[in-house]
Parts: sequence; structure tokens; C-alpha cells
Amino acid sequence: MFVNRAIALLTDFGLKDIYVGVMKGAIAQINPQLSVIDITHDIPPQDIIAARFCLMDAYRYFPPKTVFIAVVDPGVGTKRRPLAIEFSQGFLVGPDNGLFSGVLSQEKPLRVVELTNSQYWRTPHPSSTFHGRDIFATVGAHLACGESLEQLGDAIAPESLITLPIPTYEKTEKGFKGCIQYVDHFGNLITNIPGYFLPQKQGTVIINISKTVKNTQTKFSISLPIGQTYNDTKTGELIMLIGSHGWLEIALNGGNAQNKLGLKIGTTLDIIE
Amino acid sequence: MFVNRAIALLTDFGLKDIYVGVMKGAIAQINPQLSVIDITHDIPPQDIIAARFCLMDAYRYFPPKTVFIAVVDPGVGTKRRPLAIEFSQGFLVGPDNGLFSGVLSQEKPLRVVELTNSQYWRTPHPSSTFHGRDIFATVGAHLACGESLEQLGDAIAPESLITLPIPTYEKTEKGFKGCIQYVDHFGNLITNIPGYFLPQKQGTVIINISKTVKNTQTKFSISLPIGQTYNDTKTGELIMLIGSHGWLEIALNGGNAQNKLGLKIGTTLDIIE
Amino acid sequence: MFVNRAIALLTDFGLKDIYVGVMKGAIAQINPQLSVIDITHDIPPQDIIAARFCLMDAYRYFPPKTVFIAVVDPGVGTKRRPLAIEFSQGFLVGPDNGLFSGVLSQEKPLRVVELTNSQYWRTPHPSSTFHGRDIFATVGAHLACGESLEQLGDAIAPESLITLPIPTYEKTEKGFKGCIQYVDHFGNLITNIPGYFLPQKQGTVIINISKTVKNTQTKFSISLPIGQTYNDTKTGELIMLIGSHGWLEIALNGGNAQNKLGLKIGTTLDIIE
Repeated sequence: MFVNRAIALLTDFGLKDIYVGVMKGAIAQINPQLSVIDITHDIPPQDIIAARFCLMDAYRYFPPKTVFIAVVDPGVGTKRRPLAIEFSQGFLVGPDNGLFSGVLSQEKPLRVVELTNSQYWRTPHPSSTFHGRDIFATVGAHLACGESLEQLGDAIAPESLITLPIPTYEKTEKGFKGCIQYVDHFGNLITNIPGYFLPQKQGTVIINISKTVKNTQTKFSISLPIGQTYNDTKTGELIMLIGSHGWLEIALNGGNAQNKLGLKIGTTLDIIE
Repeated sequence: MFVNRAIALLTDFGLKDIYVGVMKGAIAQINPQLSVIDITHDIPPQDIIAARFCLMDAYRYFPPKTVFIAVVDPGVGTKRRPLAIEFSQGFLVGPDNGLFSGVLSQEKPLRVVELTNSQYWRTPHPSSTFHGRDIFATVGAHLACGESLEQLGDAIAPESLITLPIPTYEKTEKGFKGCIQYVDHFGNLITNIPGYFLPQKQGTVIINISKTVKNTQTKFSISLPIGQTYNDTKTGELIMLIGSHGWLEIALNGGNAQNKLGLKIGTTLDIIE
Repeated sequence: MFVNRAIALLTDFGLKDIYVGVMKGAIAQINPQLSVIDITHDIPPQDIIAARFCLMDAYRYFPPKTVFIAVVDPGVGTKRRPLAIEFSQGFLVGPDNGLFSGVLSQEKPLRVVELTNSQYWRTPHPSSTFHGRDIFATVGAHLACGESLEQLGDAIAPESLITLPIPTYEKTEKGFKGCIQYVDHFGNLITNIPGYFLPQKQGTVIINISKTVKNTQTKFSISLPIGQTYNDTKTGELIMLIGSHGWLEIALNGGNAQNKLGLKIGTTLDIIE
């Protein structure tokens, strides 16, 4: 039977150049019937932290056995290991730089291999700057066609995988403390605090914010209503809610919370219930 | 027989985040063989007027029975109704906020349902901020697989649908009057005046323009040749022609008419033949 | 047997508007099962030189018999000829304006036709501003379904095709001389000098650069290490290497070489080994 697993791509290649297109071409060279879904290609260049967040947020919305090819790879061509990982919902293919540590904080890796078998590469002499095309795309396409993980290289211990420091959050005496871990296209400020920290869906929170601009730290507080939808406050007003990804989020009804507050990834938030 | 209708997507989600990717993942969870075409995801955030225009312009270039999933949804999570509409060329799936009023100014709705049957949602407890993923993508995928509209919810009267005020145009004594309803990527200024208002394909028009900058209104006139192609005037010169969408359009041969004239959506144009 | 050749698209339409979406819709109207891969749609508007480079760089990474539809078409609606070209790896469909001259500098055209048979167009009365939708998409879709080139129009002589002046490079007494022919999303400066000019993969080169800013020419020299990967120099340092496309490239480890050097396409480089 023809196996045809979905492929999902996440990179920092942008869409201006041909890089994403030729990765898809390399996949089609293995089998033109494979279907490829773009998660995003607009990860900020070389930002493994953002990539880790996006992949962790996205993976559960794909079919079983999806092959996730993720390439944010500042260390391409160095000794960093190229990987394929099997987990309960599918496969992860990409560099060993912590990119997968978000997914793997939620899902146990079943098997991990280093991609040493060049038979499954596009060429035994891959470009030293574009493993996305010459190794990961082709290996991912073979997995999507049903190839088994063991064929692709040498088994390695899951414990040896690189992990990134996941931003921490904590329960405090009066509430909880965390930071902004992602800012989306709408300017919504996504914290690293799970939504279940805020069981009640109404009332108000006070947030103490430390903001650093040009090496000068300013502290200020804002008071926000808690809601379920952006429309639970007036147009032009800020609100705190549980975003679609499950994290606490600061949004501006009908506008852009980041532009209004001028905060960025990493900003510390001290939330008082 | 396996039904496999095309799906076309139009949103304001942008391509920076994972939102479009997970909508496609949710569609693939229903059936990974479904084929999805992006109309655009770069509708300005929450701009229902632009979305209405783009969908009205695009729908006739798709196969019969295409399922159009359109999500520009500032009222997500409020009482605004989630809809599926059947019309002669296919199906429309999205929020009841006027988004579909352009298509429906040209095509009669055959049947309309409110999406009340949560069996066809991704989850009975959809995120209150992302119906695109949790309701519209999944419902659209079921329609694309051949599900009938009636199953998806309660029939509602087409007359009850929200409509947007469509910009008006009029025949005047000396010509016609209208406004700019869209500006494309090339800077072409697309009016709301149908191309058949300008039957002759040569000569010159004078356009009286009212431009408002920082609350100050300026009036000025420009004189433009009428042509059939951008090259019917010299490089660097403005021209009026019937764009590929069928509306009168002001373009700049080899350049960007919007940058040259500094006009924006809504600007009134009084055209003298 | 159902023929289903891959289709690859390259345009300057951007992704903001519906233009790419309706081209795909027009392809799906011929056969919804055809699979379409985007090379890029972000060629700078009307920049045939950049389009020529990108297509030349991309084509070899696609399956045999791929139909490449390329539309950067400032002369749309004029007498410039619409073309289909067969070559050993597939087909090229688009305007006769030099767009294909990069691919054809590397691959011999086998047969060339002018697209005169309007039976294969979307409509016998195509929009004079959007042949991408009304001619090229539909003709490309027919080719992808197995239609033979001869059916599409009148054979023309390959020698009659428009070519673009390809930037030249030369061996000099002390090294080689060329220019920047493309700048990618990461800010990597891609020269027009083939990688095999630099056989040794270590050492240093000196580059004499002529930079013109506001009509004032400045000359300066930089000294760069030669490497194989971005990491062969320190973070924040420039490096010269052979990019994944096979050309010599100036990159900045962990950063953007274009921002650092302020160079643009066309800048002359005199490289001393």
C-alpha cells in the first residue's frame, strides 16, 4: 500500500527567496504525490526560541504520523547533529539545536536517530549551508513515504539531545510571574503562563512590568480586565485572556497590544490577581 | 465515490504565525487528501471591507463546488453567527459579518445554515478566539468531503445575513463618480466603477480628486490617457484602464500609482469623459 | 493513463493580493488534482533580472517534466510573445522577455512555441493586464495534464528568443572580478562568480569594492576569510564561501552582510586571492 504521510514545514527561510520552493521541489523529486503544509517560514532569522515555541504550539493540530521538517539552523555545516525523532504523533526532522525541545517537553521521544545514512540524502555531498534542501527535505520525504526511522542513521540516546532553556513561570504569593514568550502578527503578547493559572474568567488583574529601553529600566503597572474574547472589553482597550494556544495573552480589542505597550519577547510580567 | 472538492482560504492571519498552518493541519486531520488553495492571508487585520472585495473578485476563478473558507473575524467569540452558505458555484464558510456580501451581491445564496452542529467542529469546546481553526476549517473540510449543508446546523433566512455598505458609484452629467475601493501590491488604484462605464478604449479623462491629509482637504485634477495595457502610456506616466478584475483602475506604467498620487482606499474620484 | 506533472510557479505578484490565488484557481479549473509548488512570488515588481536568477537557481531541484510557469511581465498586453519551451528537465511557460535566459544558458531548448492557440487559454478574450491567469496558468495546466507542446501554438526558432545581458565575470591577473547578482532574505550577497573559481577552501581574500551612494563613488577594501560554513568565522564576522546555489557568496556569521556592508545588486567586486 502506498504510504502518504503529511509533511509540515517550519523554517526561517522567508518567502522572498527560492529556498522554500526548492525544499518542496526536493520533496517532490522523491514523490510528487506527497502533500506539504507550511506551518510558517517567517521565523525571525536564526531565532531558535521562536521556532521552538511555534512548533510546540502547532504540532497537535496535524494528522497522526505527520512528518515535521523544521529548519532554523544557524549551525548548519558544523558538527551539530542532523536528527529524526519518532514520537507518538509523528516524526521530527531537523538539526539538533533545541528546536524540538518545546514539543519534547510535552511528548516523549520514542526513537531518535542521527541522520548518518547518506543514501537517504539528496546527494552524498550536501551543500554545507543548506541541509534543509539536501538532507532534511529528502529524509522527511522518505519518512512520509513510509521508510522506517532505523534506516536513516544511527540510534542515539534521547537524553543526549540539546535542550533550550524554556522560559520559566511561577506561582507567587499574590498571583504569578512569567514573561512574554512570543508576539504574533496581530500584536498579541503571548506569555509563558499556562491559561489554567487563571481559573476565573472575569474580574481584573494588575500587571507590574519591567521594561528596558536603551539600557534604562522603567517599571510601571497596568490594570486589565479578564475576559474570554477580545470583545469582552471596549474597542481600543487592553484585555487579558487565554489565547487559542492555551497561554495567557495580553490583547487590544480592535488593535495591536505590542504597539500600545511597547513590550517585547522576554519582558518580565508580575501578575497580581 | 470519494468526493474531493477544492478548498480556498482567505484570512487576515498573515503568514508570520502558525495560524494558517494549523488551519490547514485541522483540514488535513479530516482528510489529508483534500487540496487547499490560498487566496490570500494578507488582508489587513480585521479589514472586512478589503476581504469582501478580494473574495468577490476571486471566487469565479475556482472550480465548481469549491469551498471558500474566509476568516476575517473581529467579532470572534461573540454572538455573531458562524455560517455556511451554498451558492451556484460552491460554498462559503465563515463569520456572519458582511464578509460574503460582495459575492452575494453577484450570486444568489441557495441555502444558508448557522453552524450549530458541534459534531462537525474540531472540538465541542472551541477556542473563543480562533474559530478559524476550531469551527470553520473543520466544517469546510467536511463540506469538501461531500457532507451536505443541512447537516451542519440550522437553516436561516438569507435576508437575515449582515451586509456591508458597498461603496457606490454613479453616472454623472459629464461622466461618472466613484471611489478607490482597493490598492494592490503594485500600487494600482482600483476604483468601484465597473469597466463597462468606459466603453471607448482611447482618449483622455479628467479626474477631480478630493484628498484628505491630516484633516485638511485638498482638491486637484489630473488628466489621464485611457488605454488597454500599462504600456499604452510612457514609462513613468499614469494611465486609466480596465483592470483584470473588471473595474476601472489607475496605474503607473513601470511604477506605483499609489506612491505617485498618495491616494488611499475611500478617496472620491469624479471622472469627466 | 492520467498524466500529472508537477507545476512550479514564480511571479512578482506578491502574496498580499488575490493574483496568485486566482492563478491557482485557474489551474484547478483544468484539473483540481494538479499539484502546484510555489518557487517564490516575491520577485521585486517587474524585476526580470532577479526572476531570471531565481529560476536558473531553482529549476534543477524539481522532478522531471515539471512545468515552470514564470510571470514577471512588465510588457503584458503588448506584442511581446507568450511562450512555452520544452527542455530536457521539463517545460517553461511565460512571456518572451528574457526571464528564461538564465535557465537557457544552462539547458538547450528542445522546442519552442508561441502560445497562439486560444483553445488552451482560459478565455479567448484574455485580460490585457493579466496573462498569468488567462493564458499562462491554463496553458501550464494543460501541459501538466500531458498535452503536447505542438498543440499550444506555432513553433518558433529558439534563436529568436529575447535574452538578457547576463552579468559577466572574469579571471584577472591576481584573482577574479564580478558583481553582486542577488541578495537573499538573510542578507547574503551572492556574486556572479562560480564557486569553482575558488578551489581552496581556506585562507583569505581581499575584495576591492566600488560603492556608489548618491552619485558619489567610494572605493574600499575588505579582507575576508574563506570558509565552508557560516561558522568558519566568529559570530559577527564576514566570510566568503560557496553558497548552496554554487556561486561565491559574502555572508556574515549570525547576521546580515548586506546591512553591514551597504552593498546592492550590481556592485562590482574585484577579488584578490
